Amino acid sequence: MTQNERYEAAVKRKCHLQTIAKRQGWSEGSPELYYSYRTLSGDLAFSIHTVFLKSLKSLGSEEQIAKWAPLCNDFQIIATYAQTELGHGTYLQGLETEATYDAATQEFVVHSPTMTATKWWPGDLGRSATHALVQAQLICSGARQGMHAFIVPIRSLQDHTPLPGVTVGDIGPKMGFHHIDHGFLRLDHVRIPRENMLSRFAQVLPDGTYLKVGSLQINYLSMVVMRVDLLLGEIIPMLQKACVIAIRYSVIRHQSSLRPSGPEVKILDYQTQQHKLLPQLATVYAFHFLASNLLKFFHSSYSAILNRDFSHLPELHALSAGIKAMVSDLCLQGTELCRRACGGHGYSKLSGLPSLVSRVTASCTYEGENTVLYLQTARFLVKNYLQAHGSLGSTSQIFLPKSIAYLTTPYQARCPAQKAADFLHAKLYTAAWAHVAARLIKDSAHHLQTLMQSGADWDEAWNQSTVLHLQAAKAHCYYISVKNFTETLDKLENEPAIQQVLKRLCDLYALHSILTNSGDFLHDGFLSGTQVDAVRTAYLNLLLLIRKDAILLTDAFDFTDHCLNSALGCYDGNVYERLFHWAQRSPTNTQGNPAYEKYIKPLLQSWRSKL
Amino acid sequence: MTQNERYEAAVKRKCHLQTIAKRQGWSEGSPELYYSYRTLSGDLAFSIHTVFLKSLKSLGSEEQIAKWAPLCNDFQIIATYAQTELGHGTYLQGLETEATYDAATQEFVVHSPTMTATKWWPGDLGRSATHALVQAQLICSGARQGMHAFIVPIRSLQDHTPLPGVTVGDIGPKMGFHHIDHGFLRLDHVRIPRENMLSRFAQVLPDGTYLKVGSLQINYLSMVVMRVDLLLGEIIPMLQKACVIAIRYSVIRHQSSLRPSGPEVKILDYQTQQHKLLPQLATVYAFHFLASNLLKFFHSSYSAILNRDFSHLPELHALSAGIKAMVSDLCLQGTELCRRACGGHGYSKLSGLPSLVSRVTASCTYEGENTVLYLQTARFLVKNYLQAHGSLGSTSQIFLPKSIAYLTTPYQARCPAQKAADFLHAKLYTAAWAHVAARLIKDSAHHLQTLMQSGADWDEAWNQSTVLHLQAAKAHCYYISVKNFTETLDKLENEPAIQQVLKRLCDLYALHSILTNSGDFLHDGFLSGTQVDAVRTAYLNLLLLIRKDAILLTDAFDFTDHCLNSALGCYDGNVYERLFHWAQRSPTNTQGNPAYEKYIKPLLQSWRSKL
Repeated sequence: MTQNERYEAAVKRKCHLQTIAKRQGWSEGSPELYYSYRTLSGDLAFSIHTVFLKSLKSLGSEEQIAKWAPLCNDFQIIATYAQTELGHGTYLQGLETEATYDAATQEFVVHSPTMTATKWWPGDLGRSATHALVQAQLICSGARQGMHAFIVPIRSLQDHTPLPGVTVGDIGPKMGFHHIDHGFLRLDHVRIPRENMLSRFAQVLPDGTYLKVGSLQINYLSMVVMRVDLLLGEIIPMLQKACVIAIRYSVIRHQSSLRPSGPEVKILDYQTQQHKLLPQLATVYAFHFLASNLLKFFHSSYSAILNRDFSHLPELHALSAGIKAMVSDLCLQGTELCRRACGGHGYSKLSGLPSLVSRVTASCTYEGENTVLYLQTARFLVKNYLQAHGSLGSTSQIFLPKSIAYLTTPYQARCPAQKAADFLHAKLYTAAWAHVAARLIKDSAHHLQTLMQSGADWDEAWNQSTVLHLQAAKAHCYYISVKNFTETLDKLENEPAIQQVLKRLCDLYALHSILTNSGDFLHDGFLSGTQVDAVRTAYLNLLLLIRKDAILLTDAFDFTDHCLNSALGCYDGNVYERLFHWAQRSPTNTQGNPAYEKYIKPLLQSWRSKL
Repeated sequence: MTQNERYEAAVKRKCHLQTIAKRQGWSEGSPELYYSYRTLSGDLAFSIHTVFLKSLKSLGSEEQIAKWAPLCNDFQIIATYAQTELGHGTYLQGLETEATYDAATQEFVVHSPTMTATKWWPGDLGRSATHALVQAQLICSGARQGMHAFIVPIRSLQDHTPLPGVTVGDIGPKMGFHHIDHGFLRLDHVRIPRENMLSRFAQVLPDGTYLKVGSLQINYLSMVVMRVDLLLGEIIPMLQKACVIAIRYSVIRHQSSLRPSGPEVKILDYQTQQHKLLPQLATVYAFHFLASNLLKFFHSSYSAILNRDFSHLPELHALSAGIKAMVSDLCLQGTELCRRACGGHGYSKLSGLPSLVSRVTASCTYEGENTVLYLQTARFLVKNYLQAHGSLGSTSQIFLPKSIAYLTTPYQARCPAQKAADFLHAKLYTAAWAHVAARLIKDSAHHLQTLMQSGADWDEAWNQSTVLHLQAAKAHCYYISVKNFTETLDKLENEPAIQQVLKRLCDLYALHSILTNSGDFLHDGFLSGTQVDAVRTAYLNLLLLIRKDAILLTDAFDFTDHCLNSALGCYDGNVYERLFHWAQRSPTNTQGNPAYEKYIKPLLQSWRSKL
């Protein structure tokens, strides 16, 4: 299907589903709708409509919610969330769109002053939305007050044409998400009523007085909401599906033989194939538990924030930023590894894998580019480290947020493990990651201080140490994910059989992460080369154990064939028949070949003219 | 464009170019055709036609070449190369297609005995080719003689319909290469004359006697030819283009400020952006020199092989396999890194980057899946290591091929470097890689021996140590590439200015490779943690130096705007205007929105019916 056809199909599906939902009384968040979304694999229009609604609920006043939420829920309007601009991405403060308050008419004048201020990328904006929540620089009484969110009507509710002053359209072809009309939006002095600025945390009085409640960081709340939702709703299921497809295919596919003239072997019995796929399976379990617990922490912090207790916001922001970056990075890596582990067939769209890769790829960039996010986490880590340790390196007795309490815990200089089996202790490898993360945070903070002592100002010193900060933030996220997995296991003590299987995955996740970052563990002698070899031995043994449960562990995700949409990953294993029959239905086979008469025949027969 | 439209356009372009070439007398390999291909960025049909021709010239007898080469050159036939099957990939011996000699008629009967024997993936096969070079298991006088290549006519030269017994078609949608008709082919007892088996190295006499000249490995020669060609012709230019686009964009794009309320900064001035892009630039220079020298070695070995001197074949095979795997792996990583370094715009097809990524992605799988290739290199390394060192570890005085002579050179146990500047010595870091590669090869060989001593047979022991072999083969390829880059520099002593700039790239390439594999250097104490920190210091300093030359170093690749086809990478830097104007021309903006009347309007207005 072309991009236009896929868009139309997604709109059709969404409208049809919405009609059913209304008739059946299914509300947003109900199990029925959840299951419908899962079955339809998200190929639906108007997904940003929900983002608008969530932003409204976190940033809007009670009156605003009462007015706009029902309009959204009934689809009397189709709304989008417009933040990024042609020239500006993750850096919120750089946005150029302006909303200038005009006290005479009690209106905001929303305006794109430059080409680079054009809003660019919002989903559902290109061809669908009637309203946009526009992030713009608030100017009132001549003063710039930073970013605020404004509800701007953009298309007529009568005939869907752009309203006066609005230029809107689609941004064209992309790697994935062909069904979504990502759009652009330029506003030429568009006037909206004063009431359209979301005002839970800041408001403009009729006379232009600006009132603010809460933290500067509150503008990031919409982004935090989206990031947390993304993990379980979009990113992690992509790697789950890729694991199901690749692992099922790997017990059907045979290649080479382990012995001369022996039978060809299931490729999952090759050590290298296990080494590719099983760590991905362990990772996706680790991330499922990680995201679930982040969601819990988010809900408790979020309730507090709505009641204007902002104390957890910095930790929530740092955790959600780092975890989003790590999960999307490693889910992309894992999905692509699964795809490549299927050889040539993984390159065919009939495998279902390319579309998973191109979707999860996007998640590394949207809702915060991952490098920027890691550095936001690093800033939080360094700041807290320096506060806790003072400038002289002495540990002061300050209270650190729970997720970084380990920064002030005394730690061992050497890992006590003596043999491979010792590395199967959760406490041991969690402590190892704590050691490495704490050391890297310390090193990056010291590097920053050294640069400043030699004359650089904070910003220059920060920039010249970001490669170190990045490494430290990643190690911190590894520590968090390993610790979280082990704590999840502790809660399963009444289900020993499940606990045992998951324990192996947890061990594999932790040991694989140590091996892929072995330099960080060897750097200060915390692990010796011999110990790293023991980690590898333990890791390779685990591959053989988990191999036996691999199929069951992917069946547990409970995806239907329809939902996987893959010739390689079907439950019945009829891979080759399905590939062959699906290929027959491709338009490249059903629509004839006009190129033959036009070009190929004249070429093939041109030599005859010389006779 | 749809897949059908892109195929038709590629055929049109190729036929048109071929007509011009014939009129102008441009021959294959001429500078005119080379430049035409480069300008058209390879979006041309019939690329496998050339592969057929090269295979014919390496595997065919003089008579066969005299008969078929002119037919190819004049495009009286369109030929493809059919090796991989639905159920069988890189493992040549597993192919199921059979060619059974019938002495009564002096014909081969070529047959696909099963569904999995269907040829799958050959380019130009789906809708274009009239002939295929089919790799099939030769059976004569009842004996299976292994893989041989047969010329099989598949479509009528009169009307292009499939010939009797031939089922042929297109394999459907893929991640990239939409313009190429990758196809499938099933043969039902298709008869071809005895003369159609390529017979430079093996032939079947009229009575069915089988005669062989040369090595068992000779069947891999076609694949070696293709792999070597691919590097400079297809894979490396992808990373070159990605570097041009991303680095040019990074001096146009501004984001955030280094100082509060300071101006937004060019993103290439961020350390993390330099850390992403500049190692890719260094890598693509390293690979250019690596592939050029491999090509030289290939030409000298190839001449010898055609004269039936096979002595260089094992080394050529091992080198080309490992280098193909390394270059395609790291070019994919680099191209994707460049794409992501462009943020959201890198996800837009208007950036030109997604199509580069999806093309180079394929190269990790085709012409030998990379894991399989690395393991072929590893087999060569382990075999030679064990021969050189005997089973007792004593070094015997055997002759090792040049590329692995370092395995018997005594090496230092500790790196002598004392400060960051010491790591800018080519000899020092080359020796460091030699040390690490030799140690990993030794460890993997010993691991294999240990497993065998504890009772495993060779094949089981090999499988259970492949994760180590993989690591050893990768280290060997790093060593080869670093050594090759430094030797290339030595030859530039009469051009000191160029030498200086390239020396920095060589240093950056080597130090970046040490940092990303630091665990291997720390493992046995060859480098200490302090030395790794010194490597990082030297590396970060180099980033700042190379930053100044970055644009010139990409301009040097000499790609035209037309050839880059990127809104982000144009020479004039008008990124945003071009993105905006190119988006306007997308069918999503020019073809109206039928979904509005059909679905959106009824949805938006459905609430009215309740009034």
